[in-house]
Amino acid sequence: MEHGFIAWAKQRSARLPQIRLGIGDDCALMDPISIESVVTTDSLCDGTHFILSECGPRAVGHKLVAVNLSDLASMAAKPLAVFLSLCLPRQSSGEIASEVFEGVCESCERYQVAIGGGDTNVWDGPLVVHMTAIGQAPQGGAWLRRGAQPGDAIYVTGSLGGSLLGKHLNFEPRLSVAQSLHPLGIVRAATDISDGLGIDLLNMTVASRCGAELELNLIPVSEAAEQRSRESGRPALEHALGDGEDFELLLAIAGDALDRVPSQVDGVPLTRIGTFVSRTGLWSKTRRGVEQLPPRGYVHG
Amino acid sequence: MEHGFIAWAKQRSARLPQIRLGIGDDCALMDPISIESVVTTDSLCDGTHFILSECGPRAVGHKLVAVNLSDLASMAAKPLAVFLSLCLPRQSSGEIASEVFEGVCESCERYQVAIGGGDTNVWDGPLVVHMTAIGQAPQGGAWLRRGAQPGDAIYVTGSLGGSLLGKHLNFEPRLSVAQSLHPLGIVRAATDISDGLGIDLLNMTVASRCGAELELNLIPVSEAAEQRSRESGRPALEHALGDGEDFELLLAIAGDALDRVPSQVDGVPLTRIGTFVSRTGLWSKTRRGVEQLPPRGYVHG
Repeated sequence: MEHGFIAWAKQRSARLPQIRLGIGDDCALMDPISIESVVTTDSLCDGTHFILSECGPRAVGHKLVAVNLSDLASMAAKPLAVFLSLCLPRQSSGEIASEVFEGVCESCERYQVAIGGGDTNVWDGPLVVHMTAIGQAPQGGAWLRRGAQPGDAIYVTGSLGGSLLGKHLNFEPRLSVAQSLHPLGIVRAATDISDGLGIDLLNMTVASRCGAELELNLIPVSEAAEQRSRESGRPALEHALGDGEDFELLLAIAGDALDRVPSQVDGVPLTRIGTFVSRTGLWSKTRRGVEQLPPRGYVHG
Repeated sequence: MEHGFIAWAKQRSARLPQIRLGIGDDCALMDPISIESVVTTDSLCDGTHFILSECGPRAVGHKLVAVNLSDLASMAAKPLAVFLSLCLPRQSSGEIASEVFEGVCESCERYQVAIGGGDTNVWDGPLVVHMTAIGQAPQGGAWLRRGAQPGDAIYVTGSLGGSLLGKHLNFEPRLSVAQSLHPLGIVRAATDISDGLGIDLLNMTVASRCGAELELNLIPVSEAAEQRSRESGRPALEHALGDGEDFELLLAIAGDALDRVPSQVDGVPLTRIGTFVSRTGLWSKTRRGVEQLPPRGYVHG
């Protein structure tokens, strides 16, 4: 299969100038990157990150690109190229490969990212797909997880929770939000919410050597989290805090710049949900005072 | 597991200047690359590229690095950084992750390559490991598969065949050979032998729009190919032509530069095994004349 597939993939993938030599040689050649390059890598496994028999292979391709681009968005990087590697189940390997690749191509065209190259393997296990994305850092430097300071506001994009009901397969990596906010110079630290608001915020505080105080009533709870709550009997807010795979941005914004934060970018709302504080750990500010909060985040596996 | 593992991996991996920000954030940051960058990606699956229960996880880490660096060597690129992604079986996931990573670290230290970052997942399937390697092209441009011309000599490094007996897990990517040969300016095209001499040579001729005439008696047949021949009853030469995973370099060297080809580099022999010709296809030159040769290469799966 591999030879026919490679020839087809080479034709199918868009040619973008950043790739001098793409699919078909031992390696790809990319143009010199005059600024820092930003690299991320993610694997998705059947049964853990998707159920192939339910979502089909094209949705896997879409998710794979989006997960990687979300990592680049969280650093305010501009995506340049992705590299794909497929481990295909023996049964229907050709068809699955084509459909995953088609999904990857559709998403790459949408975000103007080149497919630099890849690798296909057929094996006796279920589908595993892997992608490495390379971007370039923005002028002025990439956002990091560290850098939040006590007094900075905690912001999130979009709404949170219930991603398993569909959003985890079909979400918008927040590239345009990041590219609009970065030049304002008001973001001190950032990450994307993949493990759940609680865990990802805790990671940000650990990296920044501070703590965070959430105002739970401000957290934008998604409609899907409400629906999950009706099914699970747990509060919707708990789903918003812990479900994971929201792929929204979590931002530390300088406390003296709040009047410069847009309320939305391209229709995506930005919501203040709390404040970074000097006392380490996660806290919630309630009418009764301040209480420690367990980071009920969702971890794969 | 993931948090403890990431903290350990961050400590364990060597810090090299090309990585400004390594393991632990959403992405890695790499120094600007002033020359073309060279990128390759490969996955290895339990049962196909290794048998975990026989070779153990550390050998998987070694092979993963070597396979990727072999691709960079085939372009005469200098490796800068690798990015690792693991899909770990639920049983003993922590132990397997540590051992694979230890193997990756050992190999990266040996070749002075940075571990830029990675991703770990636990799932219900067997071990799958992925790596993307980024290097920089040599001054004067990377070797490509295309570029061989009729009259160029076909050279290989080392000896071929029987890799399954052990070499496929424990081989030397031919970085130093490539880095010694490139400045001589005598190599017109190159690839590494992963699918087998026959298939990889055919790929090179297709990319170069020419053919190749092998002198079968000149092909350096490895001791392992002889041993495989005793087991299989097939000629050792057939193993050398078709076994695959030799990870030796296959080179097109300008016909007028043969007196400048060293007979060995750092103890690795360079052997002329034939000539590129204008008639497309693979041919063997025998006492009886020229015969077409089936590219009995080995393809995974």
